[in-house]
Amino acid sequence: MKPIHDDTLDPQLESWVLSANTEDSDFPIQNLPFGRFRQKADEAWRIGVAIGEYVLDLRAAGLIEHGDMQRVMQAAPLAQQALRLALSSGLRSGSARRAAWEAALLLQADVELGLPCEVGDYTDFYIGAHHATEVGRQFRPDNPLLPNYQWLPIGYHGRTSTLLASGAAFHRPYGQIKPATADMPVLAPSQRLDLELELGLFIGLPNTLGEAIALQQAEQHLFGITLFNDWSARDIQAWEYQPLGPFLGKSFASSVSPWMVTMQALAPFRRPLLRPAGFAEPLPYLDSPDNRASGALDIQLEVLLQTANMAQAGHAGDVISRSNFADAACWTAAQLVTHHSINGCALRTGDLLGSGTLSGSSREHGSGSLLELTCGGSQPLQLSNGEQRGFLADGDTIVLRAWCEREGAQRIGFGECRGTILPAQTLP
Amino acid sequence: MKPIHDDTLDPQLESWVLSANTEDSDFPIQNLPFGRFRQKADEAWRIGVAIGEYVLDLRAAGLIEHGDMQRVMQAAPLAQQALRLALSSGLRSGSARRAAWEAALLLQADVELGLPCEVGDYTDFYIGAHHATEVGRQFRPDNPLLPNYQWLPIGYHGRTSTLLASGAAFHRPYGQIKPATADMPVLAPSQRLDLELELGLFIGLPNTLGEAIALQQAEQHLFGITLFNDWSARDIQAWEYQPLGPFLGKSFASSVSPWMVTMQALAPFRRPLLRPAGFAEPLPYLDSPDNRASGALDIQLEVLLQTANMAQAGHAGDVISRSNFADAACWTAAQLVTHHSINGCALRTGDLLGSGTLSGSSREHGSGSLLELTCGGSQPLQLSNGEQRGFLADGDTIVLRAWCEREGAQRIGFGECRGTILPAQTLP
Repeated sequence: MKPIHDDTLDPQLESWVLSANTEDSDFPIQNLPFGRFRQKADEAWRIGVAIGEYVLDLRAAGLIEHGDMQRVMQAAPLAQQALRLALSSGLRSGSARRAAWEAALLLQADVELGLPCEVGDYTDFYIGAHHATEVGRQFRPDNPLLPNYQWLPIGYHGRTSTLLASGAAFHRPYGQIKPATADMPVLAPSQRLDLELELGLFIGLPNTLGEAIALQQAEQHLFGITLFNDWSARDIQAWEYQPLGPFLGKSFASSVSPWMVTMQALAPFRRPLLRPAGFAEPLPYLDSPDNRASGALDIQLEVLLQTANMAQAGHAGDVISRSNFADAACWTAAQLVTHHSINGCALRTGDLLGSGTLSGSSREHGSGSLLELTCGGSQPLQLSNGEQRGFLADGDTIVLRAWCEREGAQRIGFGECRGTILPAQTLP
Repeated sequence: MKPIHDDTLDPQLESWVLSANTEDSDFPIQNLPFGRFRQKADEAWRIGVAIGEYVLDLRAAGLIEHGDMQRVMQAAPLAQQALRLALSSGLRSGSARRAAWEAALLLQADVELGLPCEVGDYTDFYIGAHHATEVGRQFRPDNPLLPNYQWLPIGYHGRTSTLLASGAAFHRPYGQIKPATADMPVLAPSQRLDLELELGLFIGLPNTLGEAIALQQAEQHLFGITLFNDWSARDIQAWEYQPLGPFLGKSFASSVSPWMVTMQALAPFRRPLLRPAGFAEPLPYLDSPDNRASGALDIQLEVLLQTANMAQAGHAGDVISRSNFADAACWTAAQLVTHHSINGCALRTGDLLGSGTLSGSSREHGSGSLLELTCGGSQPLQLSNGEQRGFLADGDTIVLRAWCEREGAQRIGFGECRGTILPAQTLP
């Protein structure tokens, strides 16, 4: 059913797509995030923008003539502003475009939403200082935060072949696991399967190989932000990660939400950068007055756990954590881009930068992983239906959500990032 | 000048492309490695096979109808055998195809050779046990090889956006560097720029996400092998790498040679797997009688350093190291594939697995990095023209070479992997 015109709408703030105007909609006309969708599994991906419960097909609306998200993302800032303005004006209540664009609207529930773009390289950062401290304490009790942590955004390369669209299920991974009391490892399904609450930052404008991106220009290279769940097998990771970092404990699956919320939409939700007490000032290439004053983003985050029993009972799941990007992260998005390119590294359109796990300042204030929430599994979560979880069980679904709200601005949301754990497969 | 027929050739072993028949040719008819080339920078890549000094354009020769290397690499084993047979029979002395195929031959020196294929993900392993021991000793004197090293092939994810074709020059990277005696890091060009002598293993047949590849099937998923130089900035790496592994110390450049030498061509050069003394037997999923008996590959390796002064004097460079894949690596190619996929990780056509640095058992027996060759820069190399090197200087060119030879088999080679260091650029 297509929306019906309503003469009471405010044409500056509201859309003729009525579901965009409800208070709790993630996708009001102020948001306009980009994603890819299709109606059948054998179709090519199409480019859409979320508006209320709908997706606007950009080609059908006459706004672009192709289905290549990379071309949209790599456009110059002025071209991106022009596209945003055209979308905003055409979707506004009273727009003359309405008649033509109604035919280009599809219910999100009726389409498949894919990965928002092709991803060339995926880098995972580790800028959640509370998370790094708490996890560091479990892996290195005497030495939780290493000396480099305050000086640079720690990051490492991840794997793109196992990026999953939201909604995809995946099998519990096998791996080498060494029980603390054993002399040798065993090959077994992970028993310490965890989520990681992250945001995913997508590169728009690329840089040239060999040319660093200055902090002042860094945000021009960011197209938008999604939710990101970097699923982790803690037992596999613990055994394999030294000296070169996580590998198979991460590379079995990472889930990405469908909608890239643009930096333009996030502009009303800027905040000063919070650096943990005692941290040194960044080196000059990672510092600027603007970055200090408004480089952080006030994005609220939420994790839901829905067990198989809950799903069967029609229960949407328990909220097991809430935190906030600006509270959790000790570096800004711009600092990540600048640091990543300071060695001349080429950032390509569609490259993904994971933020790292975004935990609040304590378990009570929202940890972004079960490793923290349950103290490494030793203090299981008590769920509302009487079940317990130290780590994730087969059939569990994790849903990440995020939104921005403040006085005087329209709330915008990120939709959700959902993934479900299937039992380990039999090995060949 | 096209080759001239010679009635004295052995049609079983020799080609009508006469430069393929010389004793020192890397590309005799027994090799037939695959790569991509073009004649102009604005052309699409074309698929070729190296034969002597020439490249055979596979489309012009009527063997394929496209320019997509991935399609060649992902073909089923039987289809790949058929293509190899057609190439071998058509290039053989006396072949009726000669007249048609002469028009499909181009001198390698007249074309641009690119990366051999599009690379989705790049994983770097660390299976050179001598290298791991020596480097471990420099980073962790009391603890060179960690307990996991003998149980699994250590690996981590790398970056594909900075993979360079052989011949490309790149700028010395900037990065955060912390002098041992300083309280804080500085931003500066790397002063400890190094090479890493590696082989690059390319995935052909992909697996399905979630499905591990059994050791017995693993080699069917490998298409071929190139030379690989994983340039490393040791000072950047030393400061940033804990706890999550190398990042910007590696991601500025990695050079790949143009020709993928196929597993079929390497078949005559199999050797038993050598495991270092005292290492445990692998877990069953990483072990088989075939893998022990013939899972390793006898590939000889060589590193040349040509300084700017040498280049100016027309000197090809000094050989600074020689080693051997089978002597250096404590895991086989098949074990890398199986371990990489044991968690269900999808290996896609064109994915690259770096072997890790392939050093011999001592400095005298061929170290694959200057970190080892010069004891971390403290014992500079004395070069033949009187220059010295602790680490690499601006204008230095590194050339990697590899070949296989044994009694009773035709020698085959890998061509070369070449890269040159340009001065650091001014930061923006």
